[in-house]
Amino acid sequence: MSRQADSPTGNRLDPWIDSYAARTRGLTASSVRALFAVASRPEVVSLAGGMPFVSALPVDAMADTVARVIRDRGAVALQYGSGQGDVTLREQILDVMKPVGISAHADDIVITAGSQLALDLVVRVFCDPGDVVLAEAPTYITALGVFSSYQCEVEHVAMDAEGLSPNALRETIAAIKAQGKRAKILYTIPSFHNPAGVTQSQERRTEILQIAQSEGILVLEDDPYGLLGFDGTVPQAIRAQDGEGVIYLGTFSKTIAAGLRVGWAVAPHGVREKLVLANETATLCPSNFAQLTISDYLQTQPWLEQVEVFRGLYRTRRDALLESLATMMPSGTRWTVPSGGFYSWVTLPGGLDAGAMLPRAVSALVAYVPGTGFFADGQGRESLRLSYCYPEPDRIREGVRRLAAVVKAESEIAATFGSPRAAVERDGLGAPTPDLA
Amino acid sequence: MSRQADSPTGNRLDPWIDSYAARTRGLTASSVRALFAVASRPEVVSLAGGMPFVSALPVDAMADTVARVIRDRGAVALQYGSGQGDVTLREQILDVMKPVGISAHADDIVITAGSQLALDLVVRVFCDPGDVVLAEAPTYITALGVFSSYQCEVEHVAMDAEGLSPNALRETIAAIKAQGKRAKILYTIPSFHNPAGVTQSQERRTEILQIAQSEGILVLEDDPYGLLGFDGTVPQAIRAQDGEGVIYLGTFSKTIAAGLRVGWAVAPHGVREKLVLANETATLCPSNFAQLTISDYLQTQPWLEQVEVFRGLYRTRRDALLESLATMMPSGTRWTVPSGGFYSWVTLPGGLDAGAMLPRAVSALVAYVPGTGFFADGQGRESLRLSYCYPEPDRIREGVRRLAAVVKAESEIAATFGSPRAAVERDGLGAPTPDLA
Repeated sequence: MSRQADSPTGNRLDPWIDSYAARTRGLTASSVRALFAVASRPEVVSLAGGMPFVSALPVDAMADTVARVIRDRGAVALQYGSGQGDVTLREQILDVMKPVGISAHADDIVITAGSQLALDLVVRVFCDPGDVVLAEAPTYITALGVFSSYQCEVEHVAMDAEGLSPNALRETIAAIKAQGKRAKILYTIPSFHNPAGVTQSQERRTEILQIAQSEGILVLEDDPYGLLGFDGTVPQAIRAQDGEGVIYLGTFSKTIAAGLRVGWAVAPHGVREKLVLANETATLCPSNFAQLTISDYLQTQPWLEQVEVFRGLYRTRRDALLESLATMMPSGTRWTVPSGGFYSWVTLPGGLDAGAMLPRAVSALVAYVPGTGFFADGQGRESLRLSYCYPEPDRIREGVRRLAAVVKAESEIAATFGSPRAAVERDGLGAPTPDLA
Repeated sequence: MSRQADSPTGNRLDPWIDSYAARTRGLTASSVRALFAVASRPEVVSLAGGMPFVSALPVDAMADTVARVIRDRGAVALQYGSGQGDVTLREQILDVMKPVGISAHADDIVITAGSQLALDLVVRVFCDPGDVVLAEAPTYITALGVFSSYQCEVEHVAMDAEGLSPNALRETIAAIKAQGKRAKILYTIPSFHNPAGVTQSQERRTEILQIAQSEGILVLEDDPYGLLGFDGTVPQAIRAQDGEGVIYLGTFSKTIAAGLRVGWAVAPHGVREKLVLANETATLCPSNFAQLTISDYLQTQPWLEQVEVFRGLYRTRRDALLESLATMMPSGTRWTVPSGGFYSWVTLPGGLDAGAMLPRAVSALVAYVPGTGFFADGQGRESLRLSYCYPEPDRIREGVRRLAAVVKAESEIAATFGSPRAAVERDGLGAPTPDLA
């Protein structure tokens, strides 16, 4: 439509380049984005994406549910709704949160278009540019995207096999105070961490909460995977211990369906009021149709049995991944052993650069997410995230076989010629493809 | 759950009151919010809400559509999707925009969780705190909420019976420049304006666009009602004249169903890239299920005939409103004559304050939205918005009868004792109830 559209180079000039907000500078496409377009080809085994295996859902029951919602409650389902979310669904969410130990009121809940939006709105309500957010090292990519979008400074806190380290948390807070700054929010994923695959012990949760309370830091607890523990036990949410100092984020994306985009926040009263107003400003209201669908599904289907199906399915895939890694990966490779959720965090041997290696892996028809994307500060070059949620077990084994061959070949080249130069310089804090959720 | 929750006053202390971002100060509940809770009682005729009359939709066809989407394409519909939106639906949106004269590519479109989110993301991408946004006087309430949320300064531009005045636009821009500032965005609703009920002529659209182009101001064209013209003609979008200088916002909320929350932006290439990244940061992706439902509906149903049904229905209601106003309202009352859309803008006689009058109107079982909410600067005290989209014609007539009685009574009191003091001091820029959309 414009002369620039005809540019043979494809590098169209942007006439608005000087008009963007300062926050937009941090909004850059990940350099691995183009690679993932290739990685979505069916011949590639993708251990990159965080897509739940929705094909395990009862299709006929879902079809009946959505048709019933329209036929019986169409005038509500197809209409604008409450900015806080449907009150019946909010009551049902109280039941959904009982296994993680949360006791709350329906009025404490704000339903959003996926818990990603709840995360966005919490940061919108709390953070001015330059405010410090504490986050695990590594942390969820698109949380970093949100923090960047609101021009927060992210300070990473080290983890170990039990998750976020309380000692590291104390040290990081002290270092921030020594700079004359104050951390406002501690963003944490205590259960089946994305991407680290580790889980905080109950004792540790209590200790982390006490540190945050004593420092006046708001805990932002993100819990998409809490019900997906493989040994059948459900870790108790940090929010279960404190209703005033913690905002809890939940979602139906991993227990029912990501495509409905329904998540929620549980927040202290004053914060909840702000979140409802922010939700209305951002989207007017969450989708009544999606909410009523989930409400009907929860009421008419054995939803906890379905969660059990997902648990078993992901456990089998986790086992396939861990067995393959143990059998095939060259010595010196390390990985975490997830007891639930979707991910294992792998660290390569001999200083190999996971970003630089990715094009070679995709050429060998296997994909992963390089580690640097999960940090705001360039850490993670030797690490990568493997996800086992979506591919069938045999595909997972084949993927690890391909990956192991690439790692071996790269290790040999590095041993002969030195470590490869990074082909991927920096993932940036830009939003990932949704595949990386 | 906390001792504060037991406070008998209901004024629970907010322990996070000192932690909110500066932008959150502008995020306050409208003072008319409590009144609208009362106004939602069935005995009240609400001429306040902007709810489409979704009961006119073909329920069985919609139920078939949603069930088919799950049965035939469940693995896609229930899964995460593209951050830009489903490519098939983006192709179909090109057809939907043909009547308003827009020629674009599917790649120019970003689908969002309602066009409200597209509006939010455009402002997020463009506006730093203090940036000046031009908007009609009056303008859409929740657009003001977005501008406030990003700490923009809003400068209103006067309208007349043909909508935004080009002369007023030139004068406002000159005044802003004289202050050493620059307007970044012109936010306009050219067709069947909310709340003013007026429509820009084609000549005027061209003139407004030329002014914006010559000043380097981005035009943000919001067009939820464009297909709902009562004489069957469809005003041509400003975007039809310029693909580089205009961002166009569209929605299915008024032509199909608001409860699905699907809208879109059409943007120049560079801007579109930023909007996709911002969309991913805010929500990961729009709902595949909602998108596939709309895509299937567009493909299998006579959707333009359904729009024709809506047009006829709203025209009948508009006529009921205008006839009632002409018959019943006291002399000196003025109102706009909408040729499409949902609203008429009423100005009261004798300096009556529409906000102060609202409690009396609700007591008389009729509700409207007071005018001040549609301004960032306290204008509009003598005006109010009436909507005719949702109530049946007989209810509209009854509502106007009640309103006219209140206006007459208030006028008599004012003539005797002077104008009533404002019970509602200020609507604020807070988000309204979604009912006000």
